[in-house]
Parts: sequence; C-alpha cells; structure tokens
Amino acid sequence: MLDNSGAFLERVVIEPTRSGILNGLTFAVKDLIDVAGYRTGCGNPTWREAHPPATVHAICVEQVLAAGARCVGKTITDELAYSLIGENYFYGTPLNPKAPDRVPGGSSSGSASAVACGLVDFAFGTDTGGSVRVPAANCGIWGIRPTHGIISVAGVNPLSPSFDTVGVLAVDVDVLVRVSSILLSAEIPAFEKPESIHLIREAFTLCEPEVRAALEMDIQKLRDLFGNRVRETSIREVDGETNVAELLNWYEIYRVLVRAEAESCLGSWIAAARPEFGPLVTESFELTHELDRSLIPGMKDRRENYFRRMKSFLGKRDLICIPTVPSPAPLKGSIRKRDQSPTGYYTSALSLTSIAGVTRSPQISMPVASVSSIPIGLSLMARTHEDAFLLAAAKFLASQ
Amino acid sequence: MLDNSGAFLERVVIEPTRSGILNGLTFAVKDLIDVAGYRTGCGNPTWREAHPPATVHAICVEQVLAAGARCVGKTITDELAYSLIGENYFYGTPLNPKAPDRVPGGSSSGSASAVACGLVDFAFGTDTGGSVRVPAANCGIWGIRPTHGIISVAGVNPLSPSFDTVGVLAVDVDVLVRVSSILLSAEIPAFEKPESIHLIREAFTLCEPEVRAALEMDIQKLRDLFGNRVRETSIREVDGETNVAELLNWYEIYRVLVRAEAESCLGSWIAAARPEFGPLVTESFELTHELDRSLIPGMKDRRENYFRRMKSFLGKRDLICIPTVPSPAPLKGSIRKRDQSPTGYYTSALSLTSIAGVTRSPQISMPVASVSSIPIGLSLMARTHEDAFLLAAAKFLASQ
Repeated sequence: MLDNSGAFLERVVIEPTRSGILNGLTFAVKDLIDVAGYRTGCGNPTWREAHPPATVHAICVEQVLAAGARCVGKTITDELAYSLIGENYFYGTPLNPKAPDRVPGGSSSGSASAVACGLVDFAFGTDTGGSVRVPAANCGIWGIRPTHGIISVAGVNPLSPSFDTVGVLAVDVDVLVRVSSILLSAEIPAFEKPESIHLIREAFTLCEPEVRAALEMDIQKLRDLFGNRVRETSIREVDGETNVAELLNWYEIYRVLVRAEAESCLGSWIAAARPEFGPLVTESFELTHELDRSLIPGMKDRRENYFRRMKSFLGKRDLICIPTVPSPAPLKGSIRKRDQSPTGYYTSALSLTSIAGVTRSPQISMPVASVSSIPIGLSLMARTHEDAFLLAAAKFLASQ
Repeated sequence: MLDNSGAFLERVVIEPTRSGILNGLTFAVKDLIDVAGYRTGCGNPTWREAHPPATVHAICVEQVLAAGARCVGKTITDELAYSLIGENYFYGTPLNPKAPDRVPGGSSSGSASAVACGLVDFAFGTDTGGSVRVPAANCGIWGIRPTHGIISVAGVNPLSPSFDTVGVLAVDVDVLVRVSSILLSAEIPAFEKPESIHLIREAFTLCEPEVRAALEMDIQKLRDLFGNRVRETSIREVDGETNVAELLNWYEIYRVLVRAEAESCLGSWIAAARPEFGPLVTESFELTHELDRSLIPGMKDRRENYFRRMKSFLGKRDLICIPTVPSPAPLKGSIRKRDQSPTGYYTSALSLTSIAGVTRSPQISMPVASVSSIPIGLSLMARTHEDAFLLAAAKFLASQ
C-alpha cells in the first residue's frame, strides 16, 4: 500500500488467529508494544539496537488477532513514549491529515496518523499522560484510555507503571466499542441515562476561548438530551482543596510521580547506554533526573487521596465531561522547549489529562468539533471499572 | 551484624530521609526491587551482570525512608521471582528459623528469613502468585499482598504485570499495619465488625487434614467473636461455575496468564542472553515457552469475569478466610520438579493464592498456627481497595 502518512515504522502482515467480531478489520501497533519476531524500538535507535526481538505478541495483540483482526504494521512513537507532540527526531512526524501543518500529537503519533489517514481501522497506543487522548483529539479520531490495570501491559515498554495504560485509537465509535469490548473482556450494555454529567469548570476555563466556543454546541446537545443532569462542577468538589488554583495540583501529582517512575524504569539504562535523544526528549529526561525526590512520598499520598475521593464522588452511572486538549494541535516545529509555566502547552494539556491519570479512570476523546477546521476533542470520563458504561454513553452520543 | 540466616545478598546502610511513624525500624529489600547505587540482580548472576546499577530507589523504598525507617540490606530472591520454594541455586537457601530443615518459601525467601530471624523489623517482597504470602506462612510471620496497582512497581523487576504486587513481611501486626499505612497512603480506621466472613469451603478441602485441624481453633475464635456472620461459602457462589472441580479453574487462569506475561517480560532476554538457571527455574521457563498461546484470550475473559463477580459478591465490610498454604513448608531439596498434578504442591498452593491474584484483592497471611511446630498461615482477604479495613481486621484479631 502506497501512503505518504509517515505513520508506519515498518509494514508487517499478521493474520488473525481466529474468527470473531473484529473480522475484516485491520490494525497497527505502536512501536512500544511487542509484535512477535520484531524489535520493539520505542522510537529510539539506540534502544532498538540494544534489545532483542520480541519472542511473542503482547497480550492485547493476541486478543484482537483471536477476534478476527489483521495486523498490518508497527507505527512511530515519540521516543520512549515521553512526549505529547509527535515529532520524532529520528523517524519523522506522522501526518495529521486534517491539519497537515500541525503535529499529530504523541506519543502514539503513528497510530493516530494511520487511523486518521484511513490506513487502518484501529491502532494500539499507550497512554501514560495523554498519549492516546491527545493525538486522538489532534487528529480528529476516537481514542480511549481505559481504567488503569485492566488491559495487560506485559510486552509493553514501561514509562511510569502507576499511570501506563494500553489504549485504542479508532476511526469510528463502533470500531472503538467492538475493539474495547474484546480488550476489556466486557459486554457493552444498552445505554442507560447517566445520573449526572459533571462539566468540570476549571477544565473549561483553562482552554483557549476558541476551544470553549467550538465545544459549546456539543455541551448544548448534552443539555438538550439530559436536562439538569448536566451541571457545572468545580474540581474542588472532588479534591476538597481550598488554597490551590485551577488544576495545577493535579498536574503536580502527575509531574512528580511520572518523573520519579520514569527514572526508575529508564534512568539506569540511559546512564549506562548514553543514547542519543532528540532535543525535546533530551529535555524531558533532564527534568526527570533533576526531580527533587523528597517530593515523592507527599505526592503519592495526595494521589491516593484524590483517587479515593473521586471514587466516592462519582457514582457508577455518573460521567465527567472536559475538553481533551486546551488548544488545537501546535504547528509543526513550534514546541521546542517544554514550557513549564502554568499557561504553557505542556502544563495545560497535562492538567486536563491528569484527572483520569491520577484517579485511574477511563476516558474517551470524541472527535466532535474543530477550531478553524483544526480538530479538537471533547472527553467523557467515568468511574474506575465503568469502562463499559462509558463506551455505551459515547456510542449513544455519537448516534444523536 | 553476624548472622547465619543466609537471608542477605548484601548488607547496605541507608539512613532515613525524614522522621516519621517508622522511626527506629529497620528493613530489608528483596533483590528484585531497586536500591540506588546497587544492581538489582533478581537472584540470577547473568541478569545481575547484564543490568546496570539502579540510579534511584524504588518508590516504595523512598516512602518508608521518608517515614523514618532504615534500610540494612538486600535479600535473596528466587531467580526472577519465578518460584514458591526459596532455594536459590546460586545464592543458597535462606534459613527458616522455626523449621530449619524446611524451605523458607519463595520467591521473597530472604525477606521472610530476615524478618523471621529477627534481623529486621520488616522487609519488602513481591507477590505475583504467592511470593509474599507463602514465605510468610512458611516462616511464621505476617505478610500482606495489597490490592493490585496501589503500591508502585516502578523500579521493581516485572514477572507478570497483571499480577505483580509489592508486599510487606513483618515481625508483628503492628509493624505490618504501620508500614502498610505509609505504602498505601491510608489511615487505618478503627475496627468495625465485618458483615460476613466467608470460609471458602474448597480452599479448606484442598489442604492437608493436619492443616485444617491446626486452623480449627482459629476458626472457632472467629465464630466466637462474630457468630453467624462467619459462614461456609462455596467458591461457586463467587465464580458461578457449575461443571468444574474445586479451585482448579482459578489456578488455570493464573497459570496461563502468568506464563503468557512472563514470556513477554523475560522471554526475549532469555532467548538472547541464554542465562544459566537452577533446575526448578529452568523448568518454569520451559513451561512458559511451551504455553499454548491460543488459551490466552479465553483466560483473560475469564479473569475479568471472576474479578467483576468478586467485586459484586464481596461488600465493603466483608472478608474471605482461607488457609494461606495447603501444607507446611516442604523439606529442603524435596521439590525437584514442578509437579503439575491437581494434588501437587505447586498446583495446590497456587490454587489458594490465585483467588486474590485473579481478583486483584488484598490478602494478609497471619501466623496463627503450626503443624508439629512447623508454621502455617491463615489468610484474610477483602474487596479490592479495602486494604485499610483488612489491616484493621487483622490487627483486631491479633489482639484477641
């Protein structure tokens, strides 16, 4: 197949092992996830050389092959999955077909691109801090980050195990639902009206005004469908804090714990192998090395506290609704430093994505809107382990 | 400190970073968990040589150092944590001080031995299929396997990520509770009477009669304390199966998925590095390589089904009670093959431990009984994320 997406690292053909509800669908696998017989290169040539080929498929790959899907390639990832941008220094920038001068978003850049370009029906990504949700929103496709710990991460290179998940990018909600039902080993139930849909005020506030405006119609649709079950809620009702601004305390938990864990997972290899990295990922690992580790125990306590508070705040049939990204995808080449100011791209994007990360909750990004024809996403989130309910809700909304 | 426990791989001294509720306590760390500046050898010399020293402590180590505890050593583990026996071919068999001709159990063999010999107040282990609970029972000490996914596994070498947990072995319940409260970032509440305590019939049936007899007094104590809240329950009420015998279907889920994931985590390294293993671990990895991978999707489905069923079966204030081990610790050198018959040691032990593993539930092994003065353990289990309630219950029982 000819394509100019730049999404694929290599083409492979792996036939389904059984027939099932994914018959006829094709998929791609992020180069962070094992496909038997191939090296899992994690987007970095030194890593690729240093590690032998995978002897077996990752569990998630086995699951969809056994349901009838066909694997057609491995897709480019940001190096070691440690970026939200999608510009790989060594392998290039996969095409964002709906906004060709913009980045696809990362780190599941190639997976999002392959789906958005129509080259596959779905693709595996991983999502630690937004690496499925952000490229899904940027490229105008569907993406799910499931409840932490349900889809197996064996055969998936770790970045931060307390936040790492395997997620799915898909061309439409029907494919997303079918693939997720296989991976989650769950029937997707008939849709039931949510008890409450919480629009998190601080999440909408931190977005660019154009993003808020672009999502207004979809919010109105929610109000039309569910009336006063849709309500504006402050994140303070969840976290119980009084003296903090916006979502920055959520971002801080994410920042400290992911850097701490990334150092554990990759630091000793980097110190010994001294790999070459692109500039953005070089900076990410510098920040990781420089982490003040005395912050770790306090942030771990806060994370578990927020996790427990979210579990009691959200009922089984409640949803949270937030914008997936704070702004449309950045222009290619525009993000050269990891701007850590409260209004920088990284801080804003991670502030939004950290709500699901910190609380281990499932989140779906829906491709419902655009700003000057550049895609953005609206997200629904549910309580942990209510992935099936969340999928049913997303499917219902897409049908309205 | 002179000792003939054989528990330690190396002595280290790492001072607490802050003062806290663990002031004055000493601990040891299984050689599967990172301590900064030291190689994490995973009980195998080839692995040790092939991997650089850890640049930072694992998160769990940071947590207890910041609460006042002092690290005094790294302890022997079975190779790559893939055994329940505790006889390391290269580094020897740590002493089981209450039964010196018996194995300590594994894979957290050195951690259990160091605690049981009184050399440390607590020790970190890891528990995938029983590697904290079994050595705790064998050595007559306390051990907890927490809810899956709460204690960070960054800096902990993976065996099977969907089952891997960091656990704690402790000399008494007070230390267990204090250390766990730090690691789980949770206050341990005042004890509340459980709604129900389910004695799982099939778990008691598969034990040796002497084990059942030895636990009778403790079961009677439960009945005296909680009356008809203590009841015999068939595992069939949880799993809903009709045509299966005993706990073998639970064991099968565990067997297939852990082998599948162990191959993902370690198979490509083993294929490339061709390390020397001891005979029992050689056999474990042979079985891993030979797994029929077409079984994976079905077993994954069954695992999630049982997980969901357990979550709805167990209320927040319910407990399950089972023997930790089916028999007292085997004699040293007696387990030479991984007997996979339904009555073999491995099958029986893993049948018991797989209930918590499959359902991601927390379990505490209590050192309450012995058979001919050889320790065994009685276990309590709670719903996922009810670790704090479980700890409160164990503490209450120890005080009666």
